[in-house]
Amino acid sequence: MTQEKKRILVLATGGTIASQSSEEGLIPALSIDNLFSKITGLNENYDITAKDILHLDSSNIQPEEWQLIANHIYESCYDYDGIVVTHGTDTMAYTTSVLSYMLQNIPIPVVVTGSQLPILNPLTDAMDNLRCAFAMAATGVPGIFLAFNRKIILGCRAVKVRTTGFDAFESVNCRYVATIDSNGLNISHKLLPKTDGTFTLRDSVCSDVFLIKLTPGLNPGIFDMLLDMNYKGVVIEAFGAGGLHFIHRDLISKLQKLVEHNIPVVVSSQCLYERSDLSIYQAGQKALEKGVIQAYDMTTEATVTKLMWALGQTNDLNEIRNIFSTNLVGEIKL
Amino acid sequence: MTQEKKRILVLATGGTIASQSSEEGLIPALSIDNLFSKITGLNENYDITAKDILHLDSSNIQPEEWQLIANHIYESCYDYDGIVVTHGTDTMAYTTSVLSYMLQNIPIPVVVTGSQLPILNPLTDAMDNLRCAFAMAATGVPGIFLAFNRKIILGCRAVKVRTTGFDAFESVNCRYVATIDSNGLNISHKLLPKTDGTFTLRDSVCSDVFLIKLTPGLNPGIFDMLLDMNYKGVVIEAFGAGGLHFIHRDLISKLQKLVEHNIPVVVSSQCLYERSDLSIYQAGQKALEKGVIQAYDMTTEATVTKLMWALGQTNDLNEIRNIFSTNLVGEIKL
Repeated sequence: MTQEKKRILVLATGGTIASQSSEEGLIPALSIDNLFSKITGLNENYDITAKDILHLDSSNIQPEEWQLIANHIYESCYDYDGIVVTHGTDTMAYTTSVLSYMLQNIPIPVVVTGSQLPILNPLTDAMDNLRCAFAMAATGVPGIFLAFNRKIILGCRAVKVRTTGFDAFESVNCRYVATIDSNGLNISHKLLPKTDGTFTLRDSVCSDVFLIKLTPGLNPGIFDMLLDMNYKGVVIEAFGAGGLHFIHRDLISKLQKLVEHNIPVVVSSQCLYERSDLSIYQAGQKALEKGVIQAYDMTTEATVTKLMWALGQTNDLNEIRNIFSTNLVGEIKL
Repeated sequence: MTQEKKRILVLATGGTIASQSSEEGLIPALSIDNLFSKITGLNENYDITAKDILHLDSSNIQPEEWQLIANHIYESCYDYDGIVVTHGTDTMAYTTSVLSYMLQNIPIPVVVTGSQLPILNPLTDAMDNLRCAFAMAATGVPGIFLAFNRKIILGCRAVKVRTTGFDAFESVNCRYVATIDSNGLNISHKLLPKTDGTFTLRDSVCSDVFLIKLTPGLNPGIFDMLLDMNYKGVVIEAFGAGGLHFIHRDLISKLQKLVEHNIPVVVSSQCLYERSDLSIYQAGQKALEKGVIQAYDMTTEATVTKLMWALGQTNDLNEIRNIFSTNLVGEIKL
């Protein structure tokens, strides 16, 4: 008995993988047909449907595009065994993070991938990344994932850490969901978030979230300006485990002002690895007393998009606190 | 013949290493005498002079403190064989970066260190870090260094990457200057910057530099606000090798406005590792045409402090361009 091929939908959004040289540098120009005509081993193994939905460098993928991609996935997710999204690498981790929130409890695998070199480049990493993405999409394991350099990362744990190397993404503060070797995909099922809740598309996001990476001497006036600009939420990448300056220039009293204006302030760390915890040091405790929310071990990408998504669901500060004290899709260890 | 002990000056600034528990969490409370009474092996091997110059959590170490520390080093550097600075870890990499610019061509080693656990903690990493810092300070190898977890990092290449692990710092886009094993310090002399120029203290810095870590959908209006707030320089942590969005929300035309107002705009990458290069992609090329300056492989800490330091030396945009196209202390590969 021949096993039926898994039905995989490919949604192409542009990115380096689909780029060609131009006088202005690399631009996303190839259509999905051009991409797939170059790859052996996929059509033979999978029943593939492919759609071009965007032709963008991922630096130009923003909340509007997140919604577009999420809607395409939502509309098709009952018709396929898995979905592969091709995407530029630059903002891929933001996209996989926000899709994780928008598409909680999705019943199928959605695997986002791309490459550091265009598919037509003789040294391209695109083939390998696509092969891994298809393999993961065919497993039936539900969730939002990122496939790169023979590793599968939970979407909300991915960070782009290298500008040019093929090992561009890391799974931060979480093991890889799967690695690939001659045994195929070695999946750590324990790492997968629960998907027993109701699946529905929740694609509202608020783009009025500002990320501040602290630098020594930062003028606290910036927080007044963010109020004037009607920002609805602020994420602060503090120093170390959650340090903020309060001598000479008092950031902490400004945080209180934001919270009093019903603006959620989430504090994370500018250290790439490990957990932030404001309760350890005096500066952090002072900030906690003002009502800031802790990001703990979340990546910056998962934190910013969680706040954008939370503000898309509610303006109630207490509800937003509840959302942040809940592990929705594996993004936080509480 | 007994070898004379090297004269080492210790300047203590506070930090976790000197912290004690309080009701408000850990606060820097121990004086240098308390620190040194706990350590065996240092007084026996070095001729030590120790001074408390600050008692701060390094989240509160800002441009004023950088200048104070630099002045203490400058005043004493002809009287000692080497200087050790104890410092909190949170902003240590900013301090070692800016000291590298302020004290170019210093004739002796200056080694900044600290710890992830207080010196009185039974598991403290302070002893090891101090031992390594003293050993480096006694080598006579001139420059600004950071000693942590048995590794010596060029001051302008250090980044704090872990919030709690003892291996808190990495040497980013540059090998370690030295590692330590039973052979002692294994120094890579090739990595050391030239120190054949004139040594003088140049401690002027401009704190009106703003760091923006891009997020998808960032409102370009922030750049108008930075002009209104009289910021003198901007560093942008762009996506990937240097991507910025210009569809829906056009960041790139705003950069032009800043440059027209004589504000230097330096673009780096939010990826921790590897080099940014705006010439590769269309979005980056568009930004380059507007006159932005490239950070290439510099760390964010080295980039922000280089711009603060450059603006302390001159307001002339062309001179600042020249400073950024010069490798001053090993901070950039051009």
